[in-house]
Amino acid sequence: MNDIFQYIDTHRDRFIDELCTFLRQPSISAQGVGMTECAELVRRLMSEVGIQARLVPTPGFPVAYGEVPSPGARRTVLIYGHYDVQPPEPLEAWETPPFEPSIRNGRIYARGAGDNKGQMFAHLKAIEAVLGTRGKLPVNVKFCFEGEEEIASKNLPAFVSAHRKLLAADVVYASDGPMHPSGPLVYFGCRGILYLELTAHGARRDLHSGLYGGVAPAPAVRLAQALASLWTSRGKVAVGGFYDRVRRPSVADRSVLGAIPFDERSVRDDLGCLPVTGAGAYYWRLLLQPNLNVAGLTSGYQGPGMKTIIPHVAHAKLDARLVMDQDPDEIEEKIRAHLKRREFGDIEVKRLGAVPPSRTPVDHPLGKAVVRAVEQAWGRRPVIVPNLGGTIPDYLFTQVLGLPSIWVPYAPHDEANHAPNESITLEGFVNGIRSTAAALFELAAT
Amino acid sequence: MNDIFQYIDTHRDRFIDELCTFLRQPSISAQGVGMTECAELVRRLMSEVGIQARLVPTPGFPVAYGEVPSPGARRTVLIYGHYDVQPPEPLEAWETPPFEPSIRNGRIYARGAGDNKGQMFAHLKAIEAVLGTRGKLPVNVKFCFEGEEEIASKNLPAFVSAHRKLLAADVVYASDGPMHPSGPLVYFGCRGILYLELTAHGARRDLHSGLYGGVAPAPAVRLAQALASLWTSRGKVAVGGFYDRVRRPSVADRSVLGAIPFDERSVRDDLGCLPVTGAGAYYWRLLLQPNLNVAGLTSGYQGPGMKTIIPHVAHAKLDARLVMDQDPDEIEEKIRAHLKRREFGDIEVKRLGAVPPSRTPVDHPLGKAVVRAVEQAWGRRPVIVPNLGGTIPDYLFTQVLGLPSIWVPYAPHDEANHAPNESITLEGFVNGIRSTAAALFELAAT
Repeated sequence: MNDIFQYIDTHRDRFIDELCTFLRQPSISAQGVGMTECAELVRRLMSEVGIQARLVPTPGFPVAYGEVPSPGARRTVLIYGHYDVQPPEPLEAWETPPFEPSIRNGRIYARGAGDNKGQMFAHLKAIEAVLGTRGKLPVNVKFCFEGEEEIASKNLPAFVSAHRKLLAADVVYASDGPMHPSGPLVYFGCRGILYLELTAHGARRDLHSGLYGGVAPAPAVRLAQALASLWTSRGKVAVGGFYDRVRRPSVADRSVLGAIPFDERSVRDDLGCLPVTGAGAYYWRLLLQPNLNVAGLTSGYQGPGMKTIIPHVAHAKLDARLVMDQDPDEIEEKIRAHLKRREFGDIEVKRLGAVPPSRTPVDHPLGKAVVRAVEQAWGRRPVIVPNLGGTIPDYLFTQVLGLPSIWVPYAPHDEANHAPNESITLEGFVNGIRSTAAALFELAAT
Repeated sequence: MNDIFQYIDTHRDRFIDELCTFLRQPSISAQGVGMTECAELVRRLMSEVGIQARLVPTPGFPVAYGEVPSPGARRTVLIYGHYDVQPPEPLEAWETPPFEPSIRNGRIYARGAGDNKGQMFAHLKAIEAVLGTRGKLPVNVKFCFEGEEEIASKNLPAFVSAHRKLLAADVVYASDGPMHPSGPLVYFGCRGILYLELTAHGARRDLHSGLYGGVAPAPAVRLAQALASLWTSRGKVAVGGFYDRVRRPSVADRSVLGAIPFDERSVRDDLGCLPVTGAGAYYWRLLLQPNLNVAGLTSGYQGPGMKTIIPHVAHAKLDARLVMDQDPDEIEEKIRAHLKRREFGDIEVKRLGAVPPSRTPVDHPLGKAVVRAVEQAWGRRPVIVPNLGGTIPDYLFTQVLGLPSIWVPYAPHDEANHAPNESITLEGFVNGIRSTAAALFELAAT
């Protein structure tokens, strides 16, 4: 790989310049800002490194699809990324403007630097480096860069289902999310999510609590009681059957889990409180156990001081993180059944979103290949994590396409994605290019 | 009383004009608008009908104090009212501007028309009518008109405690609140209130529910559990000792309660749902039973759609309506003890307000005198209610001054107090003047 790494070092400054051009182009999917221009720019950036690229329209923003065939290659690698970014607001919190990339302290600061333009651009530069050095790739490569990841990948499921042949491959390789605080990271999937809104209804309007207290229904009380019934006093989910399908960690999972560095003190300093797990169970609870959380509560008066009303309605946002082999539909059904059984059938339940969990075994041979590649790129062994605690559209690859998928973040653990002053380190960007390049060879050889 | 009622009829139109002048003067205590001017206007309106009136400063807005001595009279009546009004917002919801009184459909529409300028002004016109007809009053009368009722009578407790001699009397007579839907009403006190804010704390900031779900504390869950513990599944308050001091209704209470007209259908049509009590227990639950209500819930994300966070804090506003002989301090202590006992000692409890309940017996002889007076004024028997379900500063009279106090609302049941298009009926205003005048004579004779 030395010739390729050499090429990357030689062209490092140009790569950084080109990334800055990419970052300068706004592409805020939630606000529809700059999306057409950015999609076209992505297509051009892909073509410039020798990818046969085209934009595939969707009902929303286009997918930039690309291919680099490598006649005679045994394997095909599908690379995923997204070119849309989060809204940059609050603008006043940025030290330099979000769409004017600024290099300082060994980092590029800009909206999208980490999430996901910097990471996805590293894949393109890896293709350039391999082709520029060797003239051909060791594998066939396909690219699926979507423009809607920040708006919940609205049209990606239909796109993937409709293009199974186009996307056919042996493995998915992707870079999103942050690295571990201790350095490079490889992960193999994600927890899923089920997001519900619970609503308790009362009278047709808010009522004076003196004139109606005791005779009118109290939906905020009712909602609190319904919510409380969902957990035991020890904080376990009390919904019948909630844990039924939770997959037990494999021997490989347990071994990987035990090797993740954990610094309780830095967690405590960051959160301002201790984790609820104690040190030993932290990653087990975060990655391999489901969780049910209240993400929002709204009812009645929320300002300073007193307002004496019986609110006529009360809402809760319920955010469940699901693990293999939980199914969002089944969990929703169990929550509904629980509420009915506990005589909270009057509580309205509305689904706001759902993504199934997804996993590739941590001891998958192609995963081991990727780990070796990252080790070559960084000169150190990456942390291996069974899956993300958060949610990515990984099930489209593992369940719809039936492929193993392996994720290698190139952004630092403190990338501030979705927040002001987002950044990627120059080291992470360059080692990301090296990682993608090395991964193509390791995957080819496995 | 015919000569006095004749005087009132003769001067009816002028009285209405004068009330409109009073209503034109803004006096929004919460916003400090027009308070000095209104206090001075009140003093002048009192003087004009022959009351020896003066403004007594407080740390907030002044009390308008007045006297009409009646040498040789056996009894002294203390009349309470308030000249401040609620903020008029939302202005766009008013059919005519809040401080430009408009007469239509037999009502005067203006902020304060019902609450409380119209009602308190009726007392002044009654004094004028009696003095103008008979030359003297049958009782000594004292007036205590405060300017802070709408901001929780902040300085009235200190004023009353400091002026016991000045306020010495045999009975308090006051007009506030709305009549019964079926017509005139007499009530004898109020439920008290205890208003608490409960807060559950977690990390120092909101957290990504994927990156921390299962390992970070979840204050919104904790708050829901703490709240739910306050009630049984049947909706009774589960706080130990909460009902200990609840006074059993007297024979007179029960008789009065049974005679209150109740139209379940109109309640249902108004609320859009049935009362939780069934028809039989409605007024017992509303007036003679305490209630614990959630007036507000706030935590995390409350907008449309999904936001996947673990909120770092969760708040609830807790509004308890208390009855005789419950004590707000003791109830607060019991709620705190309950939370500690149920292992919710981490929930922060903050008192935002408290007013004790207050009662004068419904069969008090001076109460019967007032009932007779209202019957003369209206030509029909009033509904008698043991006390308001809401809260007024009545305990200052009954507990601090040790006086019986009897309340007769002159505003209609749908006065829209605290809301846009507040009104008083012309009939209620005129019969209010008649009621005050008749009450002075009935109280003198008892």
